[in-house]
Amino acid sequence: MTAETGSYGSATRYPYFYGPEGRLVLVDSALEAVRRGSTTIGIKTPAFALLASHIKPVRPLIDPAEKIFTIDGHVGATGSGYIGDILQLIEELRLEAQKHRLNFESPIDIGSLAKHLGSFLHNYTIYAVRPQAASVIVAGVDQAGVQLYQVDPSGTFMRGSGFVIGQSADIALDVVQREYSADMSVEQAVGLSNKAIEKALGERPVVEIGVVTAQDRRFQKLH
Amino acid sequence: MTAETGSYGSATRYPYFYGPEGRLVLVDSALEAVRRGSTTIGIKTPAFALLASHIKPVRPLIDPAEKIFTIDGHVGATGSGYIGDILQLIEELRLEAQKHRLNFESPIDIGSLAKHLGSFLHNYTIYAVRPQAASVIVAGVDQAGVQLYQVDPSGTFMRGSGFVIGQSADIALDVVQREYSADMSVEQAVGLSNKAIEKALGERPVVEIGVVTAQDRRFQKLH
Amino acid sequence: MTAETGSYGSATRYPYFYGPEGRLVLVDSALEAVRRGSTTIGIKTPAFALLASHIKPVRPLIDPAEKIFTIDGHVGATGSGYIGDILQLIEELRLEAQKHRLNFESPIDIGSLAKHLGSFLHNYTIYAVRPQAASVIVAGVDQAGVQLYQVDPSGTFMRGSGFVIGQSADIALDVVQREYSADMSVEQAVGLSNKAIEKALGERPVVEIGVVTAQDRRFQKLH
Amino acid sequence: MTAETGSYGSATRYPYFYGPEGRLVLVDSALEAVRRGSTTIGIKTPAFALLASHIKPVRPLIDPAEKIFTIDGHVGATGSGYIGDILQLIEELRLEAQKHRLNFESPIDIGSLAKHLGSFLHNYTIYAVRPQAASVIVAGVDQAGVQLYQVDPSGTFMRGSGFVIGQSADIALDVVQREYSADMSVEQAVGLSNKAIEKALGERPVVEIGVVTAQDRRFQKLH
Amino acid sequence: MTAETGSYGSATRYPYFYGPEGRLVLVDSALEAVRRGSTTIGIKTPAFALLASHIKPVRPLIDPAEKIFTIDGHVGATGSGYIGDILQLIEELRLEAQKHRLNFESPIDIGSLAKHLGSFLHNYTIYAVRPQAASVIVAGVDQAGVQLYQVDPSGTFMRGSGFVIGQSADIALDVVQREYSADMSVEQAVGLSNKAIEKALGERPVVEIGVVTAQDRRFQKLH
Amino acid sequence: MTAETGSYGSATRYPYFYGPEGRLVLVDSALEAVRRGSTTIGIKTPAFALLASHIKPVRPLIDPAEKIFTIDGHVGATGSGYIGDILQLIEELRLEAQKHRLNFESPIDIGSLAKHLGSFLHNYTIYAVRPQAASVIVAGVDQAGVQLYQVDPSGTFMRGSGFVIGQSADIALDVVQREYSADMSVEQAVGLSNKAIEKALGERPVVEIGVVTAQDRRFQKLH
Amino acid sequence: MTAETGSYGSATRYPYFYGPEGRLVLVDSALEAVRRGSTTIGIKTPAFALLASHIKPVRPLIDPAEKIFTIDGHVGATGSGYIGDILQLIEELRLEAQKHRLNFESPIDIGSLAKHLGSFLHNYTIYAVRPQAASVIVAGVDQAGVQLYQVDPSGTFMRGSGFVIGQSADIALDVVQREYSADMSVEQAVGLSNKAIEKALGERPVVEIGVVTAQDRRFQKLH
Repeated sequence: MTAETGSYGSATRYPYFYGPEGRLVLVDSALEAVRRGSTTIGIKTPAFALLASHIKPVRPLIDPAEKIFTIDGHVGATGSGYIGDILQLIEELRLEAQKHRLNFESPIDIGSLAKHLGSFLHNYTIYAVRPQAASVIVAGVDQAGVQLYQVDPSGTFMRGSGFVIGQSADIALDVVQREYSADMSVEQAVGLSNKAIEKALGERPVVEIGVVTAQDRRFQKLH
Repeated sequence: MTAETGSYGSATRYPYFYGPEGRLVLVDSALEAVRRGSTTIGIKTPAFALLASHIKPVRPLIDPAEKIFTIDGHVGATGSGYIGDILQLIEELRLEAQKHRLNFESPIDIGSLAKHLGSFLHNYTIYAVRPQAASVIVAGVDQAGVQLYQVDPSGTFMRGSGFVIGQSADIALDVVQREYSADMSVEQAVGLSNKAIEKALGERPVVEIGVVTAQDRRFQKLH
Repeated sequence: MTAETGSYGSATRYPYFYGPEGRLVLVDSALEAVRRGSTTIGIKTPAFALLASHIKPVRPLIDPAEKIFTIDGHVGATGSGYIGDILQLIEELRLEAQKHRLNFESPIDIGSLAKHLGSFLHNYTIYAVRPQAASVIVAGVDQAGVQLYQVDPSGTFMRGSGFVIGQSADIALDVVQREYSADMSVEQAVGLSNKAIEKALGERPVVEIGVVTAQDRRFQKLH
Repeated sequence: MTAETGSYGSATRYPYFYGPEGRLVLVDSALEAVRRGSTTIGIKTPAFALLASHIKPVRPLIDPAEKIFTIDGHVGATGSGYIGDILQLIEELRLEAQKHRLNFESPIDIGSLAKHLGSFLHNYTIYAVRPQAASVIVAGVDQAGVQLYQVDPSGTFMRGSGFVIGQSADIALDVVQREYSADMSVEQAVGLSNKAIEKALGERPVVEIGVVTAQDRRFQKLH
Repeated sequence: MTAETGSYGSATRYPYFYGPEGRLVLVDSALEAVRRGSTTIGIKTPAFALLASHIKPVRPLIDPAEKIFTIDGHVGATGSGYIGDILQLIEELRLEAQKHRLNFESPIDIGSLAKHLGSFLHNYTIYAVRPQAASVIVAGVDQAGVQLYQVDPSGTFMRGSGFVIGQSADIALDVVQREYSADMSVEQAVGLSNKAIEKALGERPVVEIGVVTAQDRRFQKLH
Repeated sequence: MTAETGSYGSATRYPYFYGPEGRLVLVDSALEAVRRGSTTIGIKTPAFALLASHIKPVRPLIDPAEKIFTIDGHVGATGSGYIGDILQLIEELRLEAQKHRLNFESPIDIGSLAKHLGSFLHNYTIYAVRPQAASVIVAGVDQAGVQLYQVDPSGTFMRGSGFVIGQSADIALDVVQREYSADMSVEQAVGLSNKAIEKALGERPVVEIGVVTAQDRRFQKLH
Repeated sequence: MTAETGSYGSATRYPYFYGPEGRLVLVDSALEAVRRGSTTIGIKTPAFALLASHIKPVRPLIDPAEKIFTIDGHVGATGSGYIGDILQLIEELRLEAQKHRLNFESPIDIGSLAKHLGSFLHNYTIYAVRPQAASVIVAGVDQAGVQLYQVDPSGTFMRGSGFVIGQSADIALDVVQREYSADMSVEQAVGLSNKAIEKALGERPVVEIGVVTAQDRRFQKLH
């Protein structure tokens, strides 16, 4: 739903598929669910791409759920929204990456992966009872270099150098945009994403982080 | 939905498929979604056809999405409306063009391509949960010369020399109609489309442009 | 829906399939859409049949859409209503005519063609989400001579010598009925249809015209 | 719906399938549509059966639609209600009669034909979006002599010597019942049906008539 | 629905499948339709079983519809409710009896036939748009002697010596119960059923009657 | 629905599948229908299991319906609720028992039978238009000894020594619980179930009874 | 639905699939049903995992239902919510474990089992009439050691050392969190879960308990 069709404000909601002003009501609702998920960030420079997801403070005795997923050796992903939906989309990405390796004996390029996820999600807006309530950020390296994509419930996908989804995404995005620099180091990017999430949530965040660099071309989670 | 059945004003909307005065309500809604998309222009002269789409100012760190798509060597397309829907229609056009090359070992003519997209869209108005919320402009060259078509969510397609879809299309169209000349150069057409979009949006636009000429018969994006 | 079940007045509408007094509500709505289409006329004499459709003034830079269609060598058709629906019905007529040539190695007779279109439309009133919103007039020549048929969204088809569908059809029909003569020439019939449309719309119309004569037995568009 | 379940008065209607007092609401609506069709009569004596249908005054330049249909050599039919529905039922009767000839190399008996149409219509009351809005009268000769049947949208069929369906059927039926005589000639029956329709409609009717006699055993339309 | 789940009073009705107090609403409606059908009686003694159905006074010139049906040589049936539904159930009974003869080369026993009809009707309460609106009484002779069954729209079947369904069934049943005697003759049973229907309807009834006796084991209609 | 999710009180009902407090509304309705069925009891001791079902006083001339059913030689069942639904469940139990004999050449154990019926009923709560409105009590003997199970519309099954379903089940159950003794004789159990039903209904009941003992291992109806 | 999308408060409910703030309404309802089930606890230390489920006081003469289920030799499970739904999920777990043994000739690891159950449940939120109304806790040992998972109706699964589901889960969880110690013995864990349930329900609970230890690697119910 990017800038193409404007932002989703506080409009009244109707049970019909198209609401006032031609909006897709169920997609609106799915996006609203995304806005309540963990604050999640993607940052890309020519040298690397980083995924960082806020780990909401879980109750004692619960292991924090994995939020950063390896899709294939050269690509990782994260998401925000309904966990059940995120997990299904992560599985779909892994399946698509494996199929590509099988058919072409080469790693899938990141744009194709994002495009596939986009049309997978788009089908739900036409044929299914409900669209999937999750946005996904994909980071990887291919022949064209380091890549970062965001894919939304409507099937829209965007390429860029800085994305934020989930709770208070606007505030965190503002921080990322102001302090982003294309020659940051991975450490600086980690610091920036921490700062952005802290600003958004008003508390010192716990985050899970994954990085892929142009040099070693492997997506890895940081510890 | 062209002039054939009149314009779509501010009539009250009902949840039933046919609304008052025999209108197709869901198609109305899809058209309204189109009217909120990027202002997008097609201009044709005997010598060339040009597609220009306003790139809405994206947030920093997001690569502007591609709005002008190559369908086949001799034909390009652009659209306005829900990005997810546009992307699906672009894929359908590419598939149809490839099928034609496979079956007939020749490039598809532009009218057939537009007609195919029209009946693809028309099927959604009869069998699907919702019609596709996107209008598409197709530009290309075939044995009959340079061609320009607009295809709407209702399945209607029109041939012409000047089309505008998306936000404030009426204002931009007014400019195009008044200043169009069949012996314009490509440069003059670029200027005209820029001026029309600027008038419509009240700001200096960023645009993506694609052109196909009668001479070299290849659709190419301008840089 | 012809005279058989009375005229469709200004009765209140309900969302249920059968409305008050046993009317088929969705068919009512489809007919109302037809009444908003281009004023379109069919005139038949023993010597020829003529189809004339008002071309609504299109915006500059748009090629007027084709309104008169050749179906097979000996038969043509036109329609009024939703353009997307008209185009689908025209395709169906062409397909049926081709099938007949393939199976019987002879041109299809016009009554069979109209009957086929009638039951094609009738199926939509029973099985589909919506009936097709278009009436069609078919003109041709077969072994029984010159033929003229009108087919409506309900699946009803009528044979006759003078039909008008679309906007202000009643006014135009009144003119045709008063001035029709079985020994008119093609030129007189063109004049009559122009006069009828002008009376209906209160303006000098632009029309597209097609004619088939008993003598040369080929449907041709006039220029 | 015959006398078996009482008459259909002016009861309030509800959108649910079974209405108050166990009535099938959609079948009620279909019957109401029948009551708005052309006044149509069937009369049978041991010597012949006659079908007569009022031809509603059509506009000038329209050929009156056929209302009396030959089904097979020895049987004819007519109907009242939605023309599109009548035409479908007539086709079904013709198909069934042809199948019988193919399978048994003998003409179908009239009772089997009426029974087939009854269960064809009954299926629509259980499985389809709407029941068919047409009643049909079938007249023919078989080994048991001259036969006359009426079949209703509910799938009910009745055998008898005098039926009237369509507009003001009650008034016309009253005339037929009072003046019917089993030893009438065809000419007298024509006179009686004309008189009944005239009484019902308050005007001198135009009718289409078909007759089958015990003697020559062929259904033929009168001219 | 027999005594098992109580009687169906004048409870308010709702459009949902289960109404208040766990009732199946559509089955209620179907039973209400049965209560509006012809008053119909079944009487059984060790020596014979009799079916009697009131023939509602039909209009002049209509042959009374058959209400007593032979299913197979040794078994007959009658019903009350929607005629279209009754006819379908009679066909199902005949089909089942024929299948049994084909598979086992012996006549079907009456209990199996009633049980088959019960589960045929039960399926409609789970899978179909509406339950069948007809109750059926089956009478026959098998190795266990003379048999009489009633089968209801819910799929319930009951064995007994005296059943009444249709209009004012309670009044007629009261007469049958008070005057029934196991050593009645067929003539006395005819008199009793006539008396019961007359009491119920307040008029001298016309009835159609069928009988099967333990002696000659053939179901036959009386004349 | 057992104690696991609490009792079903007098909560307001809504037409949606899940009602307030997460209840399954249609299952509630089905249970309410069960509560209006015949009072039915199962009692088990190490030596035998007994099924007793109140036979509601039927009208004269109706044979009381069978309420106790033999499923296989070593197992019987009874039910309360809609008779049509009970009959379908009894058939399903018989089919399952026969399948087991065919596949394993040994009698099915009672727990497997109850579990099968539970998941058969559970499927209706997910996939069907309505859950089955019947509870069933199964009694039998297998290698583990005498067994007694109750299965409910939700698919829940329970093992125990005393169950009551149907009308005023609470009152009857109270009697059974207070006076149950594991060393009762069959005769004492018959007396206890009679007393319980009499207390529940305030009248001397007619009952149908079936018993299976550890000794002769055959389910038999008492006379 | 974990912390990812916030807690489910007392928000108003709507019949539409997505409620206000993008919540999945039916999943909310399913979770509410879980909250009314038996209080059920899972506790894990490096040395063992324990499942304990409160056995609601059943009526006399009913055998308490099994609440702790062996899935495979090395893994057990328990659940809270609708018993019919729990039983189906337990069957699904057993089936998946058996399939793994068949395909890989090794015991399934506990994470895969929980993930499978998660996507099994997730499918119900997209394709089925209703999501399953049950949460499940899975305990087992695999190559990575002792494992404990909770899976919810939305398809979310969590790994941890202490879970409580069902009635008054918050109160019981508070006790478990405060007194949990990673070096507890099995006996201490049993005491802790008893104490927690007692605190939650305000009464001395009856519980069913199952344990699997790192040492003997077999899931066993305690007696």
